Amino acid sequence: MEHLYEKTLSSEQLYDGKVVKLYKDDVLLENGERAIREVVRHPGGVCVLPLDDDGNVYMVKQFRYPFGEVLLELPAGKREAGEEPIECGTRELSEEIGAKAGKMTLLGKLYPTVAYDTEVIWVYLAEELTFSGGQHLDPEEFVDVVKMPFEDALAMVLRDEIPDAKTQLGILRAAARKA
Amino acid sequence: MEHLYEKTLSSEQLYDGKVVKLYKDDVLLENGERAIREVVRHPGGVCVLPLDDDGNVYMVKQFRYPFGEVLLELPAGKREAGEEPIECGTRELSEEIGAKAGKMTLLGKLYPTVAYDTEVIWVYLAEELTFSGGQHLDPEEFVDVVKMPFEDALAMVLRDEIPDAKTQLGILRAAARKA
Repeated sequence: MEHLYEKTLSSEQLYDGKVVKLYKDDVLLENGERAIREVVRHPGGVCVLPLDDDGNVYMVKQFRYPFGEVLLELPAGKREAGEEPIECGTRELSEEIGAKAGKMTLLGKLYPTVAYDTEVIWVYLAEELTFSGGQHLDPEEFVDVVKMPFEDALAMVLRDEIPDAKTQLGILRAAARKA
Repeated sequence: MEHLYEKTLSSEQLYDGKVVKLYKDDVLLENGERAIREVVRHPGGVCVLPLDDDGNVYMVKQFRYPFGEVLLELPAGKREAGEEPIECGTRELSEEIGAKAGKMTLLGKLYPTVAYDTEVIWVYLAEELTFSGGQHLDPEEFVDVVKMPFEDALAMVLRDEIPDAKTQLGILRAAARKA
């Protein structure tokens, strides 16, 4: 075995849910020993930082069940089957904010939970916004839109008032791009 | 029901693993409808940015099974039962880097996966480093230490060469603190 690498010996699906698919794999380590790796398989998602011509960012407030808290986040969502990241970002921007972007720029990608989850999140900056048609959410989705100056959102991140990782990263990466 | 909130009606544990504990909850939405929420319950973790007096940061390279890739990350690990975040950070710094910090400063906390996972990661800046005793890893852990100027690590984040979310955030939050 190559240094650091692990080889899959077998993989068992333990759960096939709506959001979470859980696997338990048996792997071979570089020292010849075996180990168990529990892996959540996830289709990945896209997060969008919508920035209007006046320098305002549009965020969403929603209840996040694992934390029992209403969190402030950039609009985001799961990729649907066969969907390219930029298509997913365009769809989520329309569904959650009711906006269309003339320009979408990839700020970067992130792996939120590298130890046990395959999720990847692509983060886009959405500019040249036009608004029409309003939100159109899924029946189980309740989301309030919050508009604020980008500098205020950045200050909230630096005061540690926005715990969501993708939102912190979108704002910090956009700020670094401006600087 | 209060606007945006969801109420737990029942909770069923589907899997009790080494890292992942999976639950399937039945919830009541604000419109009176019911929904299923799949939740991974995780003890949380701590990530440390070790910065020496010459401005070098110490990172680790390790194989991350969900991605099949060797990733560059800040040292980090799961909280043990009853462990305070700062104790966990001090322990991981010692285990993965072989270092002790004279000064630990909380840079912030992050929720990596808000939709379906309770994990919280606390991020500390570790300064006034002393090195003794070397790494002392778990038997299943294989980790190489990489030392580089902080500015080089920041440049890698901005070139999107470090996908791990906690590492990006630790570096960007530390850079914002310096600025």
